[in-house]
Amino acid sequence: MKTVIVYNHPFSGSLCHALLESARDGAKKAGYDVDVIDLDADKFNPVMNEEELRGFLRHEMIDPQAKDYFERIRGANHLIMIFPIWWGLMPALMKGFIDKVVFPGAFYEMPEDATTMTPLLPNLKVTIITTMNTPADIYRDYFGDAIYKALVNDTFNNVGIKNVEWVSFNMVKFSTEEQRREWLEKAAQVGAKK
Amino acid sequence: MKTVIVYNHPFSGSLCHALLESARDGAKKAGYDVDVIDLDADKFNPVMNEEELRGFLRHEMIDPQAKDYFERIRGANHLIMIFPIWWGLMPALMKGFIDKVVFPGAFYEMPEDATTMTPLLPNLKVTIITTMNTPADIYRDYFGDAIYKALVNDTFNNVGIKNVEWVSFNMVKFSTEEQRREWLEKAAQVGAKK
Repeated sequence: MKTVIVYNHPFSGSLCHALLESARDGAKKAGYDVDVIDLDADKFNPVMNEEELRGFLRHEMIDPQAKDYFERIRGANHLIMIFPIWWGLMPALMKGFIDKVVFPGAFYEMPEDATTMTPLLPNLKVTIITTMNTPADIYRDYFGDAIYKALVNDTFNNVGIKNVEWVSFNMVKFSTEEQRREWLEKAAQVGAKK
Repeated sequence: MKTVIVYNHPFSGSLCHALLESARDGAKKAGYDVDVIDLDADKFNPVMNEEELRGFLRHEMIDPQAKDYFERIRGANHLIMIFPIWWGLMPALMKGFIDKVVFPGAFYEMPEDATTMTPLLPNLKVTIITTMNTPADIYRDYFGDAIYKALVNDTFNNVGIKNVEWVSFNMVKFSTEEQRREWLEKAAQVGAKK
């Protein structure tokens, strides 16, 4: 059993970083191989340039870092993503991970002019862990749970990955130490997920 | 009257690029000063690093390119954004523009531990022009109009900019030449908007 964690936060003292450590430890304790992709530490370039977009059209990744990430995910059972919500969505760095790694010929096949995709990783399990300062009901009612709609419905479900869970930690700026302890415990449970 | 267009697409032959030209020409014909920010051509770095996130917390932009962009937008009447929808959202490059330019002390003020923002650019008019291959009803019903929820509700409205319009061109891959001509005309009207 292999778990890949894709992590994005600029601060090593962030709650996201503590959640990363808990998820990793939870997965290790469950006996899984754990591979951490730290987008900030890797200085991953999230921009899709002209050559890379042409590569997308012919189903060929160009960026060696994106290729490496996909090779590490290909053999995994569980992909965990950990990032903060900024302006309702993932930071640019994590969006670039989606743009450059969720590729035709990798996550799915899609013949020219087709409208539906054939899943290539249908058994991958995905868990998305996010932090935000917005209350859950405001994010749902006014901001439409935009990260769920885009990342779960329009990305992973779209490429045929149906086993996707979103774990949202809200009002971080106003959280108590006890609350944060519970969140770290939840992240450990995500890591140990069967 | 000054219009700033923020543009993001890797292909100079893209529909987005044609929409940029139409919007720019429409604004010029209406007698407005037009300033185009081409994020790809500028090789803008969309990643918020540790130093920049610390700058965010003390309301100080660090990236000189982001500062330059804000100075150009500060005096504008109309901000037009043009980009493709990838995986339900803007590309990483445009997300980084939001992360690094929609800053406290620039677009809004927000005292430490406050939960609401004081608008600094309440009279700026914003129009968002996007292209996608998804039909409008599918994007609305299954993907929750995620770009609208995040960029209009959770970003511009949040910082007190209420005059925001989203113009969505759908099913681009399957569009006719006549359809694309109408879209270019619509982009020219956006440029000429009063």
